[in-house]
Amino acid sequence: MSAEGKTGLQLRSLIKNSGELEISLASVPTPEPADDEIVVRVEASPINPSDLGLLVGAADMTSAKASGTREAPVVTAKVPEAAMKAMAGRLDESMPVGNEGAGVVIRTGSSDAAKALMGKTVAMIGGAMYAQYRVLKARDVLELPAGTTPAEGASCFVNPLTALGMTETMRREGHKALVHTAAASNLGQMLNKICLKDGIDLVNIIRSKEQADILRKIGAKHVVDSTAPTFMDDLTNALVETGATIAFDAIGGGKLAGQILTCMEIAANKTAKVYSRYGSSVHKQVYIYGSLDPRPVELNRAFGMAWGVGGWLLFPFLQKIGPADGAKLRQRVVAELRTTFASHYTQVVSLQQALQLSNIAIYNKRATGEKFLINPNKG
Amino acid sequence: MSAEGKTGLQLRSLIKNSGELEISLASVPTPEPADDEIVVRVEASPINPSDLGLLVGAADMTSAKASGTREAPVVTAKVPEAAMKAMAGRLDESMPVGNEGAGVVIRTGSSDAAKALMGKTVAMIGGAMYAQYRVLKARDVLELPAGTTPAEGASCFVNPLTALGMTETMRREGHKALVHTAAASNLGQMLNKICLKDGIDLVNIIRSKEQADILRKIGAKHVVDSTAPTFMDDLTNALVETGATIAFDAIGGGKLAGQILTCMEIAANKTAKVYSRYGSSVHKQVYIYGSLDPRPVELNRAFGMAWGVGGWLLFPFLQKIGPADGAKLRQRVVAELRTTFASHYTQVVSLQQALQLSNIAIYNKRATGEKFLINPNKG
Repeated sequence: MSAEGKTGLQLRSLIKNSGELEISLASVPTPEPADDEIVVRVEASPINPSDLGLLVGAADMTSAKASGTREAPVVTAKVPEAAMKAMAGRLDESMPVGNEGAGVVIRTGSSDAAKALMGKTVAMIGGAMYAQYRVLKARDVLELPAGTTPAEGASCFVNPLTALGMTETMRREGHKALVHTAAASNLGQMLNKICLKDGIDLVNIIRSKEQADILRKIGAKHVVDSTAPTFMDDLTNALVETGATIAFDAIGGGKLAGQILTCMEIAANKTAKVYSRYGSSVHKQVYIYGSLDPRPVELNRAFGMAWGVGGWLLFPFLQKIGPADGAKLRQRVVAELRTTFASHYTQVVSLQQALQLSNIAIYNKRATGEKFLINPNKG
Repeated sequence: MSAEGKTGLQLRSLIKNSGELEISLASVPTPEPADDEIVVRVEASPINPSDLGLLVGAADMTSAKASGTREAPVVTAKVPEAAMKAMAGRLDESMPVGNEGAGVVIRTGSSDAAKALMGKTVAMIGGAMYAQYRVLKARDVLELPAGTTPAEGASCFVNPLTALGMTETMRREGHKALVHTAAASNLGQMLNKICLKDGIDLVNIIRSKEQADILRKIGAKHVVDSTAPTFMDDLTNALVETGATIAFDAIGGGKLAGQILTCMEIAANKTAKVYSRYGSSVHKQVYIYGSLDPRPVELNRAFGMAWGVGGWLLFPFLQKIGPADGAKLRQRVVAELRTTFASHYTQVVSLQQALQLSNIAIYNKRATGEKFLINPNKG
């Protein structure tokens, strides 16, 4: 037992100065844990959209080629020249990948806190989770209740805390209801469950009848299809009903953010009493947290002067609210891990399978309903 | 004397449900001042870009026609159908125009505060200034130092407080230097004088050599021409030198706001030590306060996730900082009215002349260097 995990495979992403992406598996020694550290055998780590940014970077994956062996596959792809400037910070650096995961503690340092975790299932965040073993400080992991599997605990951080971060931001910035786009995603479903439980009105924007059905099935009240010819009217009606003046947008590019602000403005003016040439004085906010559509954002500014559009990220949000409030959010995630925050995966793959072109083609689409889980210790 | 100003002309802007703009002069009785009120003979009121929004609305002024008489001219123009939705709040309402102005107190109510202003020159804000007489509460006007002319005091509020609002916002939101676009405007020149006096680094973005010359002549250090092929590099260099991470943009439409954020991101990454796939963690902000370019804003998001774009308006800013801090800003304006906050006008016109199509064609261009002052009591 004590020899287990002395070395392990770790997924690496490298973008070369020559403009080539190379994804491979490296065999790396596992560091001996310090007194306050533990060694975790990683058994489950999701592929989130936020991981793909690091995994494939700006590479054009339609140019991807497979090489290497079955045990040590290698994937290469071209990075378009125009995109190389944005990659400048990571050139020629072999980078581990995987924001979060869960696994079993197989070795510990000598501190009581570390020893207490021996054999326990823990959830982790901090990068380099697409690896067979991960060494972390005992205080940085989240111990999961007995009986929880690593697969159940693999997505304790990114999606649950992002969804909670949205309702928290809504409250802290003085809004009473919110809008979410790409709303049938795993994250979007969590957000619906949070809002139903907490009595918050949520307007879901989706792009197909199938996505609407997913959300209606879990109890969503306001579902608006952006592909419908009546979209702007439907959205305005939902905004009048809910009073939502803040939106979280995973799409990013195109006209959607501007359309949301425009409908918020129309909704606000329906109750306005005096004309103002500057538009409604109600502040309307869209936070862009994803980039499913990489085109530029186009804002026609038909929504007065009281508006904001900006980027939103989990980690700066957690820094802003501070460790005590962050801990409260994490406690809620653990308490509701099998209900509100349950994640569903369509495939569980090994590290080698994660490098198969046929799998990359699926998970790199970032399509609603497709979600991969990597088990780095899958046989 | 006591009969003076019992009635007076007032400029009115009306957009009819039929899609026609009508600008005319109405003869209106001057209300008797209440105890705490004064009657001001308006002698100077500037045409600011913010006035044009109400004066011409969304009308297409290339379709403008003149009618009426020399004493009571009428201007009509078509409002494009697509723009009528945005005008819904003001349809069939005859609206007075003119944000700010200055004049002489000709009659007062019985309170001591009102009587103390008799014969004094005062600066005013509050709308309906394109009129021969204006009744206001004594406490709402700004008494100007003896010897100040109404023309000198006509622009005490909008431009000076907007320029001061920019440096105040910069400080309050934690930035140390700022960027300004359309920077050779009257407002932009004031901002340069404020920044020189207060030791704040300011990056001026202009669109011609002539505009650059105007600013260099008053001591501007960082002047960048957005029409130069080296614009992005020039701007980045100025941002590295100054550390500016907030911009105030009068242009609004097109790519400029996104270009500013992109250059801020490149400048921030020049000093970054670790790669982050989310881009620099430095928050980059652009506030859009004007709309010289009515096209949509186009943001290519090549600037990480720590960014914001939003509308900025003087009045919500003043509400946010509260009356005590607002009073400090106004005191500074009065103290520096002939230096930092001096305004220059290219033409002084009567109310009738303000309705001449040849004049509208000039001031509605909102061109840098052209600035009209209305004297409603000009013979």
